[in-house]
Amino acid sequence: MAANGSGGGSDRQRVAQQRLRIIAGHLRRPADEDSAVRAAECKAPQSESDASAEGKTVPRRRQEIMKWNGWGYNDTKFIFNKKGQTEFTGKRYRLSGMILPGLQDWFENTFGASVHHKSPATNILNSSAVQPPNLNEAFVEELKSTGVPFSHDAEDRVFRANGHCLHEIFPLREGKIGRVPDTVVWPNCHNDVVKIVELACKHNVCLIPFGGGTSVSSALECPLEETRSIVSLDTSQMNRILWIDEKNLTAHVEAGIIGQDLERLLNESGYCTGHEPDSMEFSSLGGWVATRASGMKKNVYGNIEDLVVHIKMVTPQGVIEKSCQGPRMSTGPDIHHFILGSEGTLGLVTEVTMKIRPVPAYQKYGSVVFPDFEQGVACLREVARQRCAPASIRLMDNKQFQFGHALKPQGSSMFTSFLDGLKKFYITKFKGFDPNRLCVATLLFEGDREKVLQHEKQVYDIAAKFGGLAAGEDNGQRGYMLTFVIAYLRDLGLDYYVIAESFETSVPWDRVLDVCRNVKARIVRECKERGVQFSPLSTCRVTQTYDAGACVYFYFAFNYRGLSDPIHTFEQVEHAAREEILANGGSLSHHHGGGDRFKIKRLLIKRRRRVGVNDAAVITGCILTSKRWPGHPEPRGEEVILRSPRHVLTASPSRKLMGESSIYQPCTSSANTLPRPYHRSAGPLPYPVFHVPTSICQGKPLRLRTACHRVKLILGLYNVSSVLGPPLGARHCPPTVWLHRAPTSLSLYLHRGHCTQETENMT
Amino acid sequence: MAANGSGGGSDRQRVAQQRLRIIAGHLRRPADEDSAVRAAECKAPQSESDASAEGKTVPRRRQEIMKWNGWGYNDTKFIFNKKGQTEFTGKRYRLSGMILPGLQDWFENTFGASVHHKSPATNILNSSAVQPPNLNEAFVEELKSTGVPFSHDAEDRVFRANGHCLHEIFPLREGKIGRVPDTVVWPNCHNDVVKIVELACKHNVCLIPFGGGTSVSSALECPLEETRSIVSLDTSQMNRILWIDEKNLTAHVEAGIIGQDLERLLNESGYCTGHEPDSMEFSSLGGWVATRASGMKKNVYGNIEDLVVHIKMVTPQGVIEKSCQGPRMSTGPDIHHFILGSEGTLGLVTEVTMKIRPVPAYQKYGSVVFPDFEQGVACLREVARQRCAPASIRLMDNKQFQFGHALKPQGSSMFTSFLDGLKKFYITKFKGFDPNRLCVATLLFEGDREKVLQHEKQVYDIAAKFGGLAAGEDNGQRGYMLTFVIAYLRDLGLDYYVIAESFETSVPWDRVLDVCRNVKARIVRECKERGVQFSPLSTCRVTQTYDAGACVYFYFAFNYRGLSDPIHTFEQVEHAAREEILANGGSLSHHHGGGDRFKIKRLLIKRRRRVGVNDAAVITGCILTSKRWPGHPEPRGEEVILRSPRHVLTASPSRKLMGESSIYQPCTSSANTLPRPYHRSAGPLPYPVFHVPTSICQGKPLRLRTACHRVKLILGLYNVSSVLGPPLGARHCPPTVWLHRAPTSLSLYLHRGHCTQETENMT
Repeated sequence: MAANGSGGGSDRQRVAQQRLRIIAGHLRRPADEDSAVRAAECKAPQSESDASAEGKTVPRRRQEIMKWNGWGYNDTKFIFNKKGQTEFTGKRYRLSGMILPGLQDWFENTFGASVHHKSPATNILNSSAVQPPNLNEAFVEELKSTGVPFSHDAEDRVFRANGHCLHEIFPLREGKIGRVPDTVVWPNCHNDVVKIVELACKHNVCLIPFGGGTSVSSALECPLEETRSIVSLDTSQMNRILWIDEKNLTAHVEAGIIGQDLERLLNESGYCTGHEPDSMEFSSLGGWVATRASGMKKNVYGNIEDLVVHIKMVTPQGVIEKSCQGPRMSTGPDIHHFILGSEGTLGLVTEVTMKIRPVPAYQKYGSVVFPDFEQGVACLREVARQRCAPASIRLMDNKQFQFGHALKPQGSSMFTSFLDGLKKFYITKFKGFDPNRLCVATLLFEGDREKVLQHEKQVYDIAAKFGGLAAGEDNGQRGYMLTFVIAYLRDLGLDYYVIAESFETSVPWDRVLDVCRNVKARIVRECKERGVQFSPLSTCRVTQTYDAGACVYFYFAFNYRGLSDPIHTFEQVEHAAREEILANGGSLSHHHGGGDRFKIKRLLIKRRRRVGVNDAAVITGCILTSKRWPGHPEPRGEEVILRSPRHVLTASPSRKLMGESSIYQPCTSSANTLPRPYHRSAGPLPYPVFHVPTSICQGKPLRLRTACHRVKLILGLYNVSSVLGPPLGARHCPPTVWLHRAPTSLSLYLHRGHCTQETENMT
Repeated sequence: MAANGSGGGSDRQRVAQQRLRIIAGHLRRPADEDSAVRAAECKAPQSESDASAEGKTVPRRRQEIMKWNGWGYNDTKFIFNKKGQTEFTGKRYRLSGMILPGLQDWFENTFGASVHHKSPATNILNSSAVQPPNLNEAFVEELKSTGVPFSHDAEDRVFRANGHCLHEIFPLREGKIGRVPDTVVWPNCHNDVVKIVELACKHNVCLIPFGGGTSVSSALECPLEETRSIVSLDTSQMNRILWIDEKNLTAHVEAGIIGQDLERLLNESGYCTGHEPDSMEFSSLGGWVATRASGMKKNVYGNIEDLVVHIKMVTPQGVIEKSCQGPRMSTGPDIHHFILGSEGTLGLVTEVTMKIRPVPAYQKYGSVVFPDFEQGVACLREVARQRCAPASIRLMDNKQFQFGHALKPQGSSMFTSFLDGLKKFYITKFKGFDPNRLCVATLLFEGDREKVLQHEKQVYDIAAKFGGLAAGEDNGQRGYMLTFVIAYLRDLGLDYYVIAESFETSVPWDRVLDVCRNVKARIVRECKERGVQFSPLSTCRVTQTYDAGACVYFYFAFNYRGLSDPIHTFEQVEHAAREEILANGGSLSHHHGGGDRFKIKRLLIKRRRRVGVNDAAVITGCILTSKRWPGHPEPRGEEVILRSPRHVLTASPSRKLMGESSIYQPCTSSANTLPRPYHRSAGPLPYPVFHVPTSICQGKPLRLRTACHRVKLILGLYNVSSVLGPPLGARHCPPTVWLHRAPTSLSLYLHRGHCTQETENMT
């Protein structure tokens, strides 16, 4: 066999030994112990501490190291101490044990909060508040015979009952525990999962897969209406790297492995996957696949869909996997893309073959300061156009820049403040920058040293064209290092009446600024309208760039003192923010998954449920309309009544929907270019949606016939494009009308001139 | 709105004018002619010559420019003239009108053919040989009322009845015409397609989409058993670019546009998609989407799945499309990947938004000669590892290199022969190379000049490590320019008793050499065994590189004189070659699609057919096995009988299968490392497949219980990997056993030592 040029023999030996070294740790029993039947049943770990004994992060009893009603490790949190200083406790992070002198001031000023107004959490998990398990005895009996470990312990169950949405954590802090799984089971391998799924089918039991527990889409919530026994299938013990293939640069890994463990173990062999979602400390490989995760360094390594070579999934119908590892195939629809994003609705991911790469020879951080956010976005767009994005490039808005400044720790040379950093570099040059407008991009380059330096120059040259000034490595590095630490901040806020959440979207380049501006403004407006007494923090960053668009990540938070039902208010604001995203041409999610935003009966494996393409189908109707469009001349021509054809969707909240495709996202106008009433846009539906090609109703009054109480009308301008193309800069711009309460007959006049006119304006 | 740095106003004007210029050509009627209802019905072109009037390649009457029983343009073909020279007729290509002095010798020597033994084709299409159309009168009546043009003309129908598989073209050359569509319909836009599909559903008529007609997977064949009326839906008149969006770098295009038209029209605006499949002269955008096409320059521009931003597809259930153009979403399974590769089984693609890129500033060709194919593959693997593949990199084996030499035209400086080129560059250096072993890689670099030159140096440096010597730009350029011309050569062969076909696969890097060697050898062996009297041409090239594998493209051809049923023999050989590919871990197709290789009821839209994930599901059984494994010691332990569990697949040839996932590709051993009887592997099934984790049967005799006449057993070594990892270099290496005719009870002994032993051998 032809070797690859350099000396074959010793290389091969090295490779083999390396593999054996890694795999050796996974040997759990002497080889001869197997009998033919028992061999098929791989064993559970011998003791509960197995996982940690091998240096794996998450033990079966998560409570040993993790918080039950907050983020992350038990021993790590932010506190305001008695000296009026902010401390970050524990020893796990570079910031651990440090004092942050500026944070308290920033916190009090930003939120109108006070360290004297506390809203502390219940510390102790009161097991007696947990409902006794609703057991399916026959299932439990058979489960016992499989030898797969399981538990009905209250703590174990509570620890699998939630992700990290605000509405999940908030009640827990008050000691309120809702519906929790009835059983927790810890399969040790693929075959265990097969057995559990078979039993669940046989006994009509619900399964909810549980990986890292970092879900922020309510995907782990147990539905209140569920009467069957709910079993949480905790994959944390399926955490082995089964093989590393250095010829094809792939690794076959059990899906329960936690991100940090995967990278650490691969690093020992000189490899990495390079997949680094912000949650990688705790999130699992299976979770990444199920939610279509994105990693910070996707520009080099790709998102999860690019990294996956092979997936094995257990479904109620059997195991699904490709039987070939060819790198690219043209043989029908790609089942990987059925599995990616399925969020447990189709089955449980048990093993994944991932691409691996050699650990990069050289890493270099960087940062750029722009005079304003608009210039920053224009620079990122140009970087994407030239396809020279570094491993990571993130653009923070001014508020996040100021927040970063507040996180400066005391007396650490590493953590010099951002402004100090700027001054050190460019004390004079930044004179022209308005500190309340400037924004910052952080950069991470990876590769061999020479290429990184070339690459760096190219990016800084582009930045300079948009007024960007290089602002040093330290400032960049600090930005990335804070990633994991920032996750702990929400718990600090919650201790002082401040609630916070993040959400993200993807959006075409020409809508990025609209989305950022309009969503932030909508949050502020909604807070005011809904009686929030303090102005909210509403901030965003652009975290990923693509050929045709970008990912935008929003944070928002406010002080809820004075509100009777803060979570309800918060969710109304969040809902409105998502509406605004959709109205501006953004997607519901770039990388967090859909969860209950889709009203999916998520994660509940129904007995032999058939899930097909049709569940995800969008049926574009072609009908209707309502109301006069203000500012346009009287309609010409006669009235035409088009009846709802068979295509019109009869979606209703009870219908199970799945995936983006069924979400009927309106691609509507930016809120500031069309008359106000028309861009109140859809929330996360589902309601009947009528998508009307303009060509049907141009210049004509049309009449809507519907029996629904609530419908969504999208008056698409798309078809006009076949005549003149869509108006420049207004491609996603059909006006949208919401009708609340049963309309009987309404008329909307659309005038042909509208589109043409805009086009002329643009030229 | 923030502009992107450089002067907004005039830029915008330029952009707008550019767009209007492009779109203007697509205006087909005065704007005021519409009425509200008629506006919904976009019109068909006014005359049949519309398409060509706009410079589009394919008119409604394809017969005006295309061959009916051969490849390409009517006016272009290879002939052996009376002077004993080969001519390439016509004026369309750079090679057109030239004489190729070396081709005839090469042809006669390679195939044992003679210019005196002719097997000419029927020239005239005899319309009376075409069966009268089987019309559905009600459908035709309603079709008339839509105003969409259609035809029952015999020529029109014959021109839509086939792709370019050998078994499709061969009978046509003999004037034999099989089942052809009963009607040809030419929709002019998306809405026309909606109407046609509705009518087809209403009247139970079959639709077969027809794009460029370049299918090589039998996808266009009309099933003989089909009793319903068959309508060929020719998309060639849906050929407009609807808009170009320079901000997001996307273009929205009707799916019937032909590749060369799309690129030419985009080029006029300074853009390209960069998608260049070898068929791009005639294949259509919709066809690329439906078959998951791959372009020669995918390393820069991506394959079709990377290029697509939005797809609109008409299904019997309605129109399916995403309602958002976000660049990447995490909101459930990706419907694009349901559509990509669906090959007409789910619906008809009508419009596609594609990424576009500025036309590259600089292109540079190149070539490298390697002492042998093994070194060449090792070089390509290293290039992929370093992720520095140029826009295109292709590695031809020695036979293709010699074939390229035979295509040297007379007296053209551009087309100096390859060897001349080599001599010019490295007359001395190549002395050590064996002309019967050396092989050649051709390269195409794109980008800005400086980067291209850097990039080029990097690639040549890598090549040098594998003994590769740069062999000049001309040789590279010539290789790519011959791409379109070579397609005409099969017809020349067919004129002289030589039949030929190509097929392709994707395969992990560590199996590339095995696949190339074993498949070529299998073809030679099968030809001999099946009575082919002349030795075949059996050659391959590696045409695409990926992180984890490559695409390999095979050609084979032989002289069929003396065979009673040459096509049957040919197909048996091809079938065997595909078996060999599968047995060596390759996929059924890298980019041609599946077609009838999947026994899909392809392209026939059934009324409200529900296509679901389950259609594509692979159910991995866990059972059985048979026969002693020679060369391994006697089994230890007692006999265990495992009965077939509910998971075992009951696939049968009548079952409709879809996609790679249902193909049960065995990932078996390379033919030359395991004992012979065990790598007779599966053809394109479907038969029951039993996939046995080795852990079940290690060291144990197991008994198979099956009532099937034919089963496939795959004794997977995968589970061993959880103990020791798979043997190095033998990861895809479960032995495979075929049982023909109902076995009652067989035993196969697997010995644990096997895997371990191999591992030890490798170290």
